[in-house]
Amino acid sequence: MTDPLILFMPSGKRGRFPVGTPVLDAARQLGVYVESVCGGRGICGRCQVEVQEGQFAKHGITSAEDHLSPFGPKEQRYAEKRELKPGRRLSCSATVQGDLVIDVPQDVQINAQIVRKAADTRVFARKPAVQLCYVEVEEPDMHKPLGDLDRLKAALDRDWGYADILVDHHLLAQTQAILRKGQWAVTAAIHKDAETGQASMIALWPGLHNEAWGLACDIGSTTIAMHLASLLSGQVIASSGASNPQIRFGEDLMSRVSYVMMNPDGREAMTKAVREAVDGLIGKVCDESGADRNDILDAVFVGNPIMHHLFLGIDPTELGGAPFALAVSGAVHSRAGDLGLSANPGCRVYVLPCIAGHVGADAAAATLAEGPHRQDEMMLLVDVGTNAEIVLGSSARVVAASSPTGPAFEGAEISAGQRAAPGAIERVRIDPETLEPRFRVIGSELWSDESGFAEATEKTGITGICGSGIIEVVAEMFLAGVISEDGVVDGSLAAKSPRIVANGRTFSYVLHDGDPMITVTQNDIRAIQLAKAALYAGIKLLMDKLGVEHVDAIRFAGAFGSFIDPKYAMVLGLIPDCDLSKVSAVGNAAGTGARMALINRDYRREVEETVRRIEKIETALEAKFQDHFVAAMALPNKIDPFPELAKAVTLPARKTPPASDDARGGRRRREGGRRARG
Amino acid sequence: MTDPLILFMPSGKRGRFPVGTPVLDAARQLGVYVESVCGGRGICGRCQVEVQEGQFAKHGITSAEDHLSPFGPKEQRYAEKRELKPGRRLSCSATVQGDLVIDVPQDVQINAQIVRKAADTRVFARKPAVQLCYVEVEEPDMHKPLGDLDRLKAALDRDWGYADILVDHHLLAQTQAILRKGQWAVTAAIHKDAETGQASMIALWPGLHNEAWGLACDIGSTTIAMHLASLLSGQVIASSGASNPQIRFGEDLMSRVSYVMMNPDGREAMTKAVREAVDGLIGKVCDESGADRNDILDAVFVGNPIMHHLFLGIDPTELGGAPFALAVSGAVHSRAGDLGLSANPGCRVYVLPCIAGHVGADAAAATLAEGPHRQDEMMLLVDVGTNAEIVLGSSARVVAASSPTGPAFEGAEISAGQRAAPGAIERVRIDPETLEPRFRVIGSELWSDESGFAEATEKTGITGICGSGIIEVVAEMFLAGVISEDGVVDGSLAAKSPRIVANGRTFSYVLHDGDPMITVTQNDIRAIQLAKAALYAGIKLLMDKLGVEHVDAIRFAGAFGSFIDPKYAMVLGLIPDCDLSKVSAVGNAAGTGARMALINRDYRREVEETVRRIEKIETALEAKFQDHFVAAMALPNKIDPFPELAKAVTLPARKTPPASDDARGGRRRREGGRRARG
Repeated sequence: MTDPLILFMPSGKRGRFPVGTPVLDAARQLGVYVESVCGGRGICGRCQVEVQEGQFAKHGITSAEDHLSPFGPKEQRYAEKRELKPGRRLSCSATVQGDLVIDVPQDVQINAQIVRKAADTRVFARKPAVQLCYVEVEEPDMHKPLGDLDRLKAALDRDWGYADILVDHHLLAQTQAILRKGQWAVTAAIHKDAETGQASMIALWPGLHNEAWGLACDIGSTTIAMHLASLLSGQVIASSGASNPQIRFGEDLMSRVSYVMMNPDGREAMTKAVREAVDGLIGKVCDESGADRNDILDAVFVGNPIMHHLFLGIDPTELGGAPFALAVSGAVHSRAGDLGLSANPGCRVYVLPCIAGHVGADAAAATLAEGPHRQDEMMLLVDVGTNAEIVLGSSARVVAASSPTGPAFEGAEISAGQRAAPGAIERVRIDPETLEPRFRVIGSELWSDESGFAEATEKTGITGICGSGIIEVVAEMFLAGVISEDGVVDGSLAAKSPRIVANGRTFSYVLHDGDPMITVTQNDIRAIQLAKAALYAGIKLLMDKLGVEHVDAIRFAGAFGSFIDPKYAMVLGLIPDCDLSKVSAVGNAAGTGARMALINRDYRREVEETVRRIEKIETALEAKFQDHFVAAMALPNKIDPFPELAKAVTLPARKTPPASDDARGGRRRREGGRRARG
Repeated sequence: MTDPLILFMPSGKRGRFPVGTPVLDAARQLGVYVESVCGGRGICGRCQVEVQEGQFAKHGITSAEDHLSPFGPKEQRYAEKRELKPGRRLSCSATVQGDLVIDVPQDVQINAQIVRKAADTRVFARKPAVQLCYVEVEEPDMHKPLGDLDRLKAALDRDWGYADILVDHHLLAQTQAILRKGQWAVTAAIHKDAETGQASMIALWPGLHNEAWGLACDIGSTTIAMHLASLLSGQVIASSGASNPQIRFGEDLMSRVSYVMMNPDGREAMTKAVREAVDGLIGKVCDESGADRNDILDAVFVGNPIMHHLFLGIDPTELGGAPFALAVSGAVHSRAGDLGLSANPGCRVYVLPCIAGHVGADAAAATLAEGPHRQDEMMLLVDVGTNAEIVLGSSARVVAASSPTGPAFEGAEISAGQRAAPGAIERVRIDPETLEPRFRVIGSELWSDESGFAEATEKTGITGICGSGIIEVVAEMFLAGVISEDGVVDGSLAAKSPRIVANGRTFSYVLHDGDPMITVTQNDIRAIQLAKAALYAGIKLLMDKLGVEHVDAIRFAGAFGSFIDPKYAMVLGLIPDCDLSKVSAVGNAAGTGARMALINRDYRREVEETVRRIEKIETALEAKFQDHFVAAMALPNKIDPFPELAKAVTLPARKTPPASDDARGGRRRREGGRRARG
C-alpha cells in the first residue's frame, strides 16, 4: 500500500507521507511555509491549517473522513486557553491518516492585492527574515560546564536547525537572567540574512513570546508612508503617513541637495529630521495597533536616491551633478539603533537597492511589486515626479531610466497650478462646439454645470488646477481644437468664444472666470509639452533599447498616477499607445514592494538580482533622447500612431508637417539643469 | 623540461612553477602566508623575502645563480623611497627563473618563544583575522551606475577574492569621501571571521595605508597585561601592565562577586573600572610605540571566568555558587566600541572560550600556548592562584579541572605571609644539622649569611615570607626533619635548637629573629598542607581520569610558577614526580595564547575545538577527590613514590603508618566554601 497523498493549497505542493506524520512536518518537507513559534508543542497556535471538505475528486483524493487524526490533547488544551476557529487544526498536532487536501490559511491579504494581473491565483509564501523560536534549554550541569548561552545555542540547533548562530552583543549580558526568568524556556528571535544566510539571535524573551512585528516604510520627499505588519501572520495591522519634515529645508529634492551643499550641518539636520519623522511614525502605528515597539524586529525601507542617502546619513551632494554617483547602490543591511530608531535593540533594517543615480530604491520596490521581470508581457512601469522613473520590460529583459520631466505635472511651473488639495480643479471637459468648460474640484463629486456645485464648493473655493486637472484641460483643449498639434492656442477662436483671451502676444484659455480667475496660458501648455515630451522620450528610448514598438500594459505608480485618467495621458502623449484596459494606477507600489521584502526574505534576493540585471539607461548620454524629445513635443506626438487611443477618442486630424520645425520654440536643453525626482 | 622547483623556508612547502611566476604567487598557491597590502603593486614592501645562498644541495637544489629575475623597476622604486635590506626582494616583483630556496623572514619572534619544547624548529604561520587590502576602484560611470561602495566591493572581489563582504555601518557614510580623497585608490581593512568565514570591511583609508595593529590582553584579577602587535609583521612593539582597579571592590575574586551581589550597581562599577583600565593600557602601549589608536583593528582578550564576565558586562553572580554556571562559555565576538574601548571604530574583539566555571579563557589560552593537545607526551599544565587551574593530557585526550587551593600559596592565611615585594623572603635553606636557616629576600642577590646582606636589606627590611618562600621553608623544614611527614613540628627539637619555640600547644620555627620576628607556625604548615593537598588531589584526579601514573612534563603558568623552585614544589608534593629537567615555568602563558590567537586566526578555531574536546572534571562532584586530598596531606604525600625527586634530594625515610589517620587533624571540607581562583 502506498503512503497517503497530501496536497497543500493554495501552493499546490503535494507529496506522500507515512500515516502518523504530523501535518506540520509534511508541510516543511514540501517547503510549504507554515509558521510555528513553539516548535510543535501546541502552545503558540501559529501553525493552524484547515482541512478542505468536498471538491476532493478534482485533486484525485476522494474522501477526508478520518483522514486526519482526531482532535488531540494538545489541540484541546490550546482551544480551551485560546480560540481555535471551527475547521482549524494545529498542524503540529494533527497527523496524517489518509489522503488529504490541506488549506494553509492565507491571512496575508497583501498578496492578492499586489499583483493585479495574476489576480487571486498568485500566492506569495511568507518567509520573514526574522523567526521566533521557542526552546527549552538544558539546565546547568557541572559535569558538562557549557555556558548558559551555549546551551541555548545548542537547543536552537537541536530544535530549529540553527547551527553556528551569531549573538547580538546586547544579549550577552541578558541571556542568563532571561533563561532563569523563563525557567529554562525562552523564545529567541533569529534573523536570517538573505545575502549571507547567516543566522543571528537578535532578541530573547522568557517563556513563550508569540508576537513579532515588522515595518515597511516608503520615504518620499513629500510624504513618508509606514505599515506595521505581523511577521507571524503577514497581516498589516496599522498604516500611517506623515509629511517629510525635510520640506522645511527645501520643497523639492534639488533644493535639499543645495541646502546640504550650502550648510555645513545641512546633511546632519536633514538626516535627523527624517529619522525623527520615521521614529514618530513608528510610535503612531504602535499606538494605533497597541503593538509594543520592543516587539519590532525587522524593518524595510525604500526611497528615492536622495531620501535613501539622507536617511542613511550619507551626503547626497554627488547626486546633484553628473555623473550622479550613488554612494551605495546595493541593498543596505543595518540596525534600527544605528539609524536612531527606537525598536527592539536587535531590530534589523533592510534598505532595498537603488537602480541608478535617479532611479532609487522606491523604483526597485515598485519593480518588485509589479514584477515586469516575472511575466512575459511588455510592461511599462512609470512613477512620475519631478523626475519620472521608468522601468520597461518582461521576463526576458528589463531596462530603466529617469526622465527630467520637471515639476509641471505636480502643478508647479503652471500659472494656476497647485498641489492636489480641496478646491483644486481635477477633472475638465470642454465642449468642442461652444468651447465652454465644465470641471470638478477636489472635495466635491459634482461637475461645475450641475446644480448645487456652487454650494458644494463654497467652503473650499476654486483655487487652482492640480496635476491631473492640468493633464485633462490641455488634452481637452487639444481635442476641442483650441490648441493645435504643436501646442499653440488658436487666437482666431477669440472671435468665436470669450474663453479665448489675448495674453500679450499669445492667447490663454479661461477655465474659471471667478476669484481667482483660472486660465491656462500658452506658457502653461509649453510647460506641459516639455514635461510630457521628456517623459515620452524616456519611454521611447527604453522601447528603442528593447526594440519594441508597442507595450502590452502600463502601470502608473505613485500619487500622480492614481488621479490622472489614462485616456488623457495618452491623448497628451505622456505614454505610448496601449489597450486602455491595460493601463492602470497601482498606487504606492514602492510601499507594496517594501512590504513584500518584509514578509518574505526571498524577495530581497529577487529585487537585488533584478536590479543587477536591469539595464540602466542614462537619458543625458543618449543622442536619440533629444530627437525623441523634440518629436514628442507635438500632441499627441509625432512618433507613433495611436490605434488603441483612437478607439476611445476622436483625435483631430493631423494638420502640421513633421516635428522638427514646430516644436523648436519650446525646446530647451534640460539635462544641464536636471532635477532630481520629487 | 620540468618547471623550476621552489622551496619555501621555514615552512618547507615546495612546488614547481613556470618560469616567470612571481614568487608571491607561488607562495600563495602553496599556502605560504606572505603579507601584501598593495596586492603586488610594489608599493607596500610587506612581501619581502630572502633568497638562500648555499646549502642548496640538501634541498635537492644546486644553484641560485640567475634563478631569480634581476632587480626590477618596482623594486628599484621601492628601494629608493624606503629601505630594502641587502638580500631582500619584493616577492610580488621577483619572478621564478630556476630552482630556488626562499626564506620568508620570520619577524615574528613570538613563535620561537612560545613552544619551548619544539624550540626553534616549530614555526607558526601568521594569518591575522584582519588584512589590509589596497585597491584601485573604478570611477563612477553613468553607463554603469553602480554605487561607489559597490565598485569598491567589486575591486575587493577582483583583486583580493573577497566576494559578498559585509560593510560596517559607520563606513556607509564615509566611503564616498574617502574614495575621492584617495583619487579612487584606497586601503580597506577586511576582517575574516574565524567562525563563519564571513568577510567584513571594517575600516577604509584613502590611498595606501600600511599599518595595522592588534591587541592581546590578559585580564587577571590582580594585573592586566597588554601587548600591542603589528598585524602586518606579527611583531610586538609595546607591552604594558596595570593593576586591576577592581581590587578596590575586593581583593580576591569571591569578594568581587560578593560586591556585585550586595550592590545594585556593583557589576556596572566593576565593568567600568576594568574597561577604563584596559582603555588606559591601550593609550599606554600607543604612547610607548607611537602607534595610532585608530590603526588598532583587532583585539584578543583572555581572563578567568569572573574577569571575563565583568569585562563583557555580564553579572558573575552565578559563578559564586554551584553549579557555577557560566553565562557564556564559547568564544565571544564583539567590537571595541561595544566594550567602551577607543580604537578604530571597526576594531573587532575576540574573547577566547572558557573551559568551565572555574577554568577560564586564561586557562584556554595557556592550553593553546603550551599545546598539550598538539603533542604526545603526558603534559601537566598548572596555573596556581586562589584556585588552581589544571590541564592534563596529550594529543589523544585532555582533561581539566580546578582545585580549591585557597590563597595560602599567595602568602595569605600565613602568619608572616605577604605578597611578593621587596623585603619578602623568597628563598630558604635550613642546615639539617644545626637547623639554622639562611635565606634571600626580594631586592637582594645575597644570602642572609653572606657579608653585606644587612646593608643590602637595610632599605627594604625583612618584612615577611612570599609564596615561593613559604614553599621553600616548609620543604626545607621537612628535609631537615623539623616537621614530620604528617606536618607536625617536632617539639622535642626545641631542646636542640633555639629556632624551635613553643607556641601554645604547638611549636613554631623562627626563620628570622628580627623586627618583625618571622616564624613559621604549625598553622602555617597546616595551611600549606591543605593548599598543596588540594592541588595535588586535583592533579591526581585528572591522572586517574586518564589512567596514567606518571606525567612526562610539567608547565607552571602564571606568576607563582615563575618564582617557585620545582624541586621544592615536588618535595612538598604540590606536583607529582617528574623528571626535574622537564618541569618549567612558562610565565604568562595566557598572554602568549592571546597573542597567538591575535596573529593567526586559525588558532581561534584550534582553541575553540580544543576547549570543546577537553573533558571537564568538577572536583566537588568526585568522591575520589576527598580521598586523594586526605592522602596528599602528608609530606611529600602518601600516594606516589618519587623516584625522580629522589635523584635530586634525599628524602627523609617514611616513619608513619598510612595517611587516613594522621592527616585527619588538618582535614576540612573546603568545597562548600570553594574560592574562585585569583
